[in-house]
Amino acid sequence: MDFKVLAYDKQTKARCGEIQIAGRTISTPVFMPVGTQGTVKTITPEYLGRTGTKVILCNAYHLCLRPGEGLIKQIGGLHKFIGWDGAIITDSGGYQVFSLAGLIKTTDEGVEFQSPIDGSKLFLTPQKMTRIQNDIGADIIMAFDECVPYPCEREMASVAVKRTLNWAEQCKGSHKNERQALFGIVQGSVFKELRIECAQRLVEMDFDGYAIGGLSVGEGAHPMNEALDYTVDYLPQDRPRYLMGVGFPSDILDAVERGVDMFDCVVPTRNGRNGCAFTGNGKVKILNSQYREDIRPIDETCGCYTCSNFSRAYLRHLFLAHEILGLTLMSLHNIWYYQNMMQRVRESIVRGEFKAFKKDFLLGMVE
Amino acid sequence: MDFKVLAYDKQTKARCGEIQIAGRTISTPVFMPVGTQGTVKTITPEYLGRTGTKVILCNAYHLCLRPGEGLIKQIGGLHKFIGWDGAIITDSGGYQVFSLAGLIKTTDEGVEFQSPIDGSKLFLTPQKMTRIQNDIGADIIMAFDECVPYPCEREMASVAVKRTLNWAEQCKGSHKNERQALFGIVQGSVFKELRIECAQRLVEMDFDGYAIGGLSVGEGAHPMNEALDYTVDYLPQDRPRYLMGVGFPSDILDAVERGVDMFDCVVPTRNGRNGCAFTGNGKVKILNSQYREDIRPIDETCGCYTCSNFSRAYLRHLFLAHEILGLTLMSLHNIWYYQNMMQRVRESIVRGEFKAFKKDFLLGMVE
Repeated sequence: MDFKVLAYDKQTKARCGEIQIAGRTISTPVFMPVGTQGTVKTITPEYLGRTGTKVILCNAYHLCLRPGEGLIKQIGGLHKFIGWDGAIITDSGGYQVFSLAGLIKTTDEGVEFQSPIDGSKLFLTPQKMTRIQNDIGADIIMAFDECVPYPCEREMASVAVKRTLNWAEQCKGSHKNERQALFGIVQGSVFKELRIECAQRLVEMDFDGYAIGGLSVGEGAHPMNEALDYTVDYLPQDRPRYLMGVGFPSDILDAVERGVDMFDCVVPTRNGRNGCAFTGNGKVKILNSQYREDIRPIDETCGCYTCSNFSRAYLRHLFLAHEILGLTLMSLHNIWYYQNMMQRVRESIVRGEFKAFKKDFLLGMVE
Repeated sequence: MDFKVLAYDKQTKARCGEIQIAGRTISTPVFMPVGTQGTVKTITPEYLGRTGTKVILCNAYHLCLRPGEGLIKQIGGLHKFIGWDGAIITDSGGYQVFSLAGLIKTTDEGVEFQSPIDGSKLFLTPQKMTRIQNDIGADIIMAFDECVPYPCEREMASVAVKRTLNWAEQCKGSHKNERQALFGIVQGSVFKELRIECAQRLVEMDFDGYAIGGLSVGEGAHPMNEALDYTVDYLPQDRPRYLMGVGFPSDILDAVERGVDMFDCVVPTRNGRNGCAFTGNGKVKILNSQYREDIRPIDETCGCYTCSNFSRAYLRHLFLAHEILGLTLMSLHNIWYYQNMMQRVRESIVRGEFKAFKKDFLLGMVE
């Protein structure tokens, strides 16, 4: 993997760059739609590609439970399995183990839990999750971390940071697929010294990139931005920085301003499936009766397939009639919206005018 | 509407023709995917067009209940509303009123029933259903008929035929949109004299095309084919013949052989959503464990988007993971399969070799 910063914003820490990996080029800051189980929900890879999406996030935890990393490897790797020729990053599943699985027992060695699919007992270790991700074959893989809930006692957060660092070292030691980049994950909840310690120790281990995990878990925008303010300063300029699971458009702009390069979030697809579309003039909740006879597209300035072909009235009809096409069309629009926003983010950074762009963009959102 | 028979098969009543309507050309025999509520379930119009689909069937009964024919008219008609630039036929909903609605009271004037959506009392008449279809604006509309269940006493079938004929006359009299073709519907259950009487009387009324309704409702393939044998002979050569709601590939081939030109059926989409794909070598039930590691597409000879990009193993994974993309991809394949079959049907008729084609095709299906 190669990462170059191509431009710095004049007034903020925002930067615009390029990740080269496995013959693919990804312009940063980048938004990565979420395809947890090997599909960005309701959307074909072809339509996804047309939104400008260059990289998606899949989840090694979900994929090792089903269909199993062995099957994916045997079939020729995740890209081939899911029919996606863009880049892929897999999360190691630290977050999912803690938020989704039952009966967890965490030790310094790893995590024991029950499969939510068949109830069988599983034991995941840093070595095993690295091997699993090697087999799955994404372009970028993540270290196995311990993600604490919010709020969290300092002592508990501190133990989790130590374990995360220990596990990060083990992941690096057992990483066997040199075509894959490996990112470390900074934990530490909202405790400044823990975050800084974690960042510094990870940087000493020399990862291909650095993720910031355990944020956007309920702490709110202010503590998150504060954590980014001090954490990013301890991460090297020449490696990509990835804020995991974030977020709403305003969260992403806040984080770009603080020097973050990569984002993933279920919001565009989940909100789309719930009938909520993003536009330059605020949200369109498609079931609202005001759209009953509205012949306009969701967003008249949008070039997506949905806005090029369908009215709000039709989308509303699809949702009322419980027709799946509605979920597809709304998700597609929202991903386009996010990718269009990121394109404009990158252009504004190149012009050195990110701050002005952000202000304008946020004004439009609440109009 | 203009209809021309371009070729007759040498050994059967099968014929190949062309419907010209509203600037659109439809080669017959034609299969029309079903988009009851204004969407062929799970599939974008763009993908639908790529399957070779030229005409779809929507349902005026469903659409007048929701979103309402007034809204569709106001927005510029059904083509514009649903973003489909192929042809559209609307069924009048005779069949649906009897099979879906509650508390029905049928009189010579029309049908009183409760809306399955909000429980409100509705009264549909031939005049009203014609006006509704005029407003919706499909290219071809259907007379309002009374469809009896199977089995059915001769007396009940006879009353329904009289009513259907009476209503057909009223539909013709009240049809106000000259850009739309109007088809009459032959009823009569499995009673030869009733079918023939109904066909003769409808032909006297001079419709743009003739549908055969009330078949494929449980009577089985043999009685259905028998009914086609004698009914088709009483329909004019120079008008298209449409067998409503049929069917499985073998049913369609049986009916083509008997001189039928048009078909609609939910089978390709419904079976697709249930994980069952058609192939030249029989059905693929995608959840079967034999496909767990199967890297082949559903059908190696198929050119559809699904077969060009995805393995059986991936489709099986999508179904196991309850991912909507699986429904889309399987439905898409099945529609392609149907359209590919119809293309080969038409070619075989032009060559005068429909009988041999049918035999080969059916052999392949059960291999």
